[in-house]
Amino acid sequence: MVTLRKQYAVARPLYSEDSFAEDHEKVSRQRKTIMDHFAEYLTCDSKRAKNAVLSLLPVIGWMRIYRVRQWLLGDVVSGISTGMVAIMQGLAFSLMASLPPIYGLYTAFFPMLTYFFLGTSRHISVGSFPVLSLMVGAVVTRLVPEIGPSANITSFEGLTKDQQRVLVASSVTFLMGIFQLAMGVMQVGFIVVYLSDTLVSGFTTSAAIHILVSQLKFVLGLTVPGINGPLSIIYTLEKIFVQITSTNICDLVMSILIMAMVFIVKELNDKYKAKLPVPIPIEFLMTVIACGVSYGFNFKERFDVAIVGTMVSGYESPIAPDMEIFQESALEAFPIAIVGFAVAFSVAKVYSIKHDYTIDGNQELIAFGVSNIFGASFRSFAASTALSRTALQESSGGKSQIAGLISAIMAMIVTVSLGFLLEPLPKSVLGALVIVNLKGMLMQFRDIPYLWKKDKPDCVVWVGTCLGATLLGLDLGLAVGLGVELLTVVLRTQFPRCSVLANIPGTDLYRDRKDYQHMFEPNGVKIFRIPSPIFFANIDFFRDKLLEAVGFNPLRVLKKRDKALKKVKKLLTEQRKKGDVTETGLDGSFYQTAEESHVNMKVLDLPTDLKDFSLRIDWKLNAELPADISVPRVDLHSLILDFSAVSFLDISALKGLKTALKEFIRIDVDVYIVSCDAYILEKLHSCLFFDDEILTSMFFPTLHDAMLHVLAKDTGDRSTGCVLSDTKL
Amino acid sequence: MVTLRKQYAVARPLYSEDSFAEDHEKVSRQRKTIMDHFAEYLTCDSKRAKNAVLSLLPVIGWMRIYRVRQWLLGDVVSGISTGMVAIMQGLAFSLMASLPPIYGLYTAFFPMLTYFFLGTSRHISVGSFPVLSLMVGAVVTRLVPEIGPSANITSFEGLTKDQQRVLVASSVTFLMGIFQLAMGVMQVGFIVVYLSDTLVSGFTTSAAIHILVSQLKFVLGLTVPGINGPLSIIYTLEKIFVQITSTNICDLVMSILIMAMVFIVKELNDKYKAKLPVPIPIEFLMTVIACGVSYGFNFKERFDVAIVGTMVSGYESPIAPDMEIFQESALEAFPIAIVGFAVAFSVAKVYSIKHDYTIDGNQELIAFGVSNIFGASFRSFAASTALSRTALQESSGGKSQIAGLISAIMAMIVTVSLGFLLEPLPKSVLGALVIVNLKGMLMQFRDIPYLWKKDKPDCVVWVGTCLGATLLGLDLGLAVGLGVELLTVVLRTQFPRCSVLANIPGTDLYRDRKDYQHMFEPNGVKIFRIPSPIFFANIDFFRDKLLEAVGFNPLRVLKKRDKALKKVKKLLTEQRKKGDVTETGLDGSFYQTAEESHVNMKVLDLPTDLKDFSLRIDWKLNAELPADISVPRVDLHSLILDFSAVSFLDISALKGLKTALKEFIRIDVDVYIVSCDAYILEKLHSCLFFDDEILTSMFFPTLHDAMLHVLAKDTGDRSTGCVLSDTKL
Repeated sequence: MVTLRKQYAVARPLYSEDSFAEDHEKVSRQRKTIMDHFAEYLTCDSKRAKNAVLSLLPVIGWMRIYRVRQWLLGDVVSGISTGMVAIMQGLAFSLMASLPPIYGLYTAFFPMLTYFFLGTSRHISVGSFPVLSLMVGAVVTRLVPEIGPSANITSFEGLTKDQQRVLVASSVTFLMGIFQLAMGVMQVGFIVVYLSDTLVSGFTTSAAIHILVSQLKFVLGLTVPGINGPLSIIYTLEKIFVQITSTNICDLVMSILIMAMVFIVKELNDKYKAKLPVPIPIEFLMTVIACGVSYGFNFKERFDVAIVGTMVSGYESPIAPDMEIFQESALEAFPIAIVGFAVAFSVAKVYSIKHDYTIDGNQELIAFGVSNIFGASFRSFAASTALSRTALQESSGGKSQIAGLISAIMAMIVTVSLGFLLEPLPKSVLGALVIVNLKGMLMQFRDIPYLWKKDKPDCVVWVGTCLGATLLGLDLGLAVGLGVELLTVVLRTQFPRCSVLANIPGTDLYRDRKDYQHMFEPNGVKIFRIPSPIFFANIDFFRDKLLEAVGFNPLRVLKKRDKALKKVKKLLTEQRKKGDVTETGLDGSFYQTAEESHVNMKVLDLPTDLKDFSLRIDWKLNAELPADISVPRVDLHSLILDFSAVSFLDISALKGLKTALKEFIRIDVDVYIVSCDAYILEKLHSCLFFDDEILTSMFFPTLHDAMLHVLAKDTGDRSTGCVLSDTKL
Repeated sequence: MVTLRKQYAVARPLYSEDSFAEDHEKVSRQRKTIMDHFAEYLTCDSKRAKNAVLSLLPVIGWMRIYRVRQWLLGDVVSGISTGMVAIMQGLAFSLMASLPPIYGLYTAFFPMLTYFFLGTSRHISVGSFPVLSLMVGAVVTRLVPEIGPSANITSFEGLTKDQQRVLVASSVTFLMGIFQLAMGVMQVGFIVVYLSDTLVSGFTTSAAIHILVSQLKFVLGLTVPGINGPLSIIYTLEKIFVQITSTNICDLVMSILIMAMVFIVKELNDKYKAKLPVPIPIEFLMTVIACGVSYGFNFKERFDVAIVGTMVSGYESPIAPDMEIFQESALEAFPIAIVGFAVAFSVAKVYSIKHDYTIDGNQELIAFGVSNIFGASFRSFAASTALSRTALQESSGGKSQIAGLISAIMAMIVTVSLGFLLEPLPKSVLGALVIVNLKGMLMQFRDIPYLWKKDKPDCVVWVGTCLGATLLGLDLGLAVGLGVELLTVVLRTQFPRCSVLANIPGTDLYRDRKDYQHMFEPNGVKIFRIPSPIFFANIDFFRDKLLEAVGFNPLRVLKKRDKALKKVKKLLTEQRKKGDVTETGLDGSFYQTAEESHVNMKVLDLPTDLKDFSLRIDWKLNAELPADISVPRVDLHSLILDFSAVSFLDISALKGLKTALKEFIRIDVDVYIVSCDAYILEKLHSCLFFDDEILTSMFFPTLHDAMLHVLAKDTGDRSTGCVLSDTKL
């Protein structure tokens, strides 16, 4: 067997980083500075200019490759079926935003018009998104509450409550658009990477809970004022339960029926996905039926059911956003902008990978920014994409934004001419449709046990985000979730498992000495592995672990030695005064040692600086010091630090490391640093890390090089060859 | 020369992680679970109980070793000189907290009484701290503004404005004490590690600016209402400049004189530190002189100078904190608690290291918590330590908290019997004394160029914290600074410099191939180094860098291959129908290849799953595919990922890594992972990272092992020995 095994054989000179650099000259590379990058970024030539124009109007790109025969039919079919869902969702989500339903249809129309030209995704269905609608609704009900007076805003004068609400919603949307556009222009689209899957999952689950609670009042037919701020969800639930006896039974029964129907048909749609060309538009059918029944039996009058009510046909004139509302809602518009973009981008990314084309985050930001600003000017509210609608658009054959345009036209047709048909629709039906669609989002609760099993910090992020967003509200909750998430990254690097390594006999490999039985660990040598970056939050932690590993505190040893030296000096001076340096009550051998160690009177005359002096006493001969002077024994002569996993050092780490190394060096422990990254070594040089105590010669390319060096030094450089061929290694 | 060089020689079997594990059995170690740690933590025996009691009353510990003869004199001298400063500072800082000066003397007395018993530091001088005073002052002026009505708090009824202010200050202090005590009991003292030196430096510099601005009105003798919230510093400056013409010249001249005197004498104190037994108490002297002059010339009447005014002799009765104020100020009391503790702890740490004793962060939290609760009950405000006072206490010979106790008694004497002497003291004198003491804190601006040179992210943290705290206020600024600081840690790990490694010929060492001239990089092998942990924020970054390094996108290749296969299949099926499989317009050799690759008709009949099929075509023979089918050529056969610096993986990284690896494996690239940390490997196992595509056999202990394995495999396992002894390696 052994002969069949492949062999690993290496024979080369022993290298320290210094000798390696001597033998292998580095190519001098000009590193780009920040200014170079900046200059490059600002460079402009005709090709770049053309590309910039093309990337600003992605429609040109995909229109060029549009295959009419193969794609158009799919786009039309998909556009029509998505359009029906978009209408339903528009109506329902506008209730979530506390706005009259017609504005949901606006949102399904206007933003799409600009996204068509500017968007890089060919598959997402632009329009209302429940979480955003809810977040806009929070601002709307804060400034224009159901009960009580509206906020003190000048332009509210002379407007009805609904008009005030529309003004608030469109102003917030306008501001959100400005934020998105600004982020796109500043090219900071990358910030969505901080919204990790875990965070988004926790956040959307919490959003689903909020949505569920917000729709309960419609399903139960109750009047509950919108409540805002931290813990509002609990207060809302309390208000609902207080008046639960006034539930409108007609609303409740209808809702339950509809939820059951939609749920069942959706499951069937899923099951027979392969066989159905287009899923059954059950939500549309239920809406039509509900409209008919409600109209036929006059639900409004007979059962006091809340219905959609008067739908203004056609579009209203554009509206200017209000500066006062900007001021009031700036802190809320920012998270709305982030969430809106993050959701759209992550959905778009999935389909871009599936269909193998590239999307551009910054261009998407610009597209959504412009779309929201445009939409807001025409009274529509925050647009992004809904996962379900996009999935439908893609699965029913949509190949490009032509499908999106067609669904927008569907919304327009309903707005302009068929709106009146929706007037008798009970609001509870819309609520029921929203609730039944929350299934997927609420199913994310199953992530908790999964994450707990796989990675506990991730689970903490999920639960933290979900709890935070549920209790504090979506905007504050997002901030809390981000904070927790960033903190877990810090915490993961902050408390890593340090280990003391030892050699696997017969190899150049080093492992945790606790993990294996037969390990080689020479006397007086400690190998300490630092398994993570070093920075302000863990430099003390590492120092403690290192002291624990070596078993003593070098600073204390140094102090004890200094103290002992002072005493010895005092004794010597006293005896010198007496003139009997040789005749003494102290053990003669100590003085011999001291003499050998160049402790001459000149040094002793120096008033304070005992450093040089202390370095020259052989502290191993501890026992021969005067009886009342005791100094801790140090058995360590070499300390090797494995830096292979140290991916960065900050300024606190530099300082702390320097101090720690000096403490060891001053008590005559040789310190070696191995496997240090080339960039970190460069940084140490540029930060003046090295001085007359901390030398570049302490760096070695591998642990084994350092170990061989230590062993060779330890055996007095006599039997170098012997050690190297020694079976121990 | 060469013969003198130490040699590095290793001969051992080639190991993969699997074969290494076979040869070296791991000791099965019972890892402690969270529950074990928790159980251990809760274990109680008599020794632990005794230790707990001792650690709760550190006074017992240091009293036992108190050396009356050597320490007592120093303590008394230090106590008296510190006491004088404490009185001055108490008066001055109470103005910063917008409280009558007498309460500053309270703060110099009460908190010390409990700290004496509970504190672990023997050198800090407990009492008022300017930053804390200012933060308390912000709450005080928010709830009880100079102009306009006080906040709507029940217990304010019937109280004078000053009484209301004292109630607010003591309630905030009480709450701060509760926070500190709670943190101490929960043993979370470690959180101060997040306040890095850089952050504290930026924060205190900003505090100095705030203090400077807050004292300007006293120095100029103006009446400026306290302004709160973001940008308050700008509004305050505006108010001051608006009425700069009404400056009280007497105040101004006196202030400038005092500042100049104090500044000069302080410099002299510093210069002749070694020769002076105790620094000249210039502040005390100036105060006495100012009192005398102000009284003698009746400044108050003659020049309309604002003076300290009536000082109530003795102590007032205890006060209960107010719950309504708790609610109003909870968000502000928390940063006050953190800052107060952080400053005291960092100062205490410096002296504990200098004098070689241990301090305990959690016990310090308990000590300050109790001291603040106790102090607040007696109407004193937030206590921590002032750096200058502690430095004086230590340098003038203080060895233990006996010195602190004596300085507290000094404050008591002034409060009880000498307070009336301070009545004619102009407030501008106190302001001038505060301003002249800001020198050290403002000098920290010099950190900016230093940090910029050494470490840019740290510089950003400094500037971010300082700007944030200056513009947004100290509490919000602290939060902003913390956020920036955490973000820099994330950013440092997020965008590391990835590199492609190559072998240094003749060695087992691998370096960045761009850095050296003569490197060995076998054809078809890429070594990619991941130089940092992998987590949600950088997994995509790494994927992009990896694709850039290998030069192609494996997913796209896979898709193209699938597409080509479908076409080939279609062609074959068509031709099979025609019955002329052998006679074809296509190049015959392709079919041979296909036949060799087991592309039989059975496989072609399978409807969708082309995966197995695709794996069996030799894509290297690209050129022999039908002319209209082109598939990108892949020259890579082995990809080695260097994981030595990957100190952790989160769940997103696991998913992303798995996907990326699979993409490469599916286009027949062998992937190897080397130098993976043992804990990460364990984690991968526990997270079910491995399946039938991703095998444990891809892990190797070192880069060189993997490289030798690849080379041996590449040469067909024939000349293994030859490759190993090859001079190339």
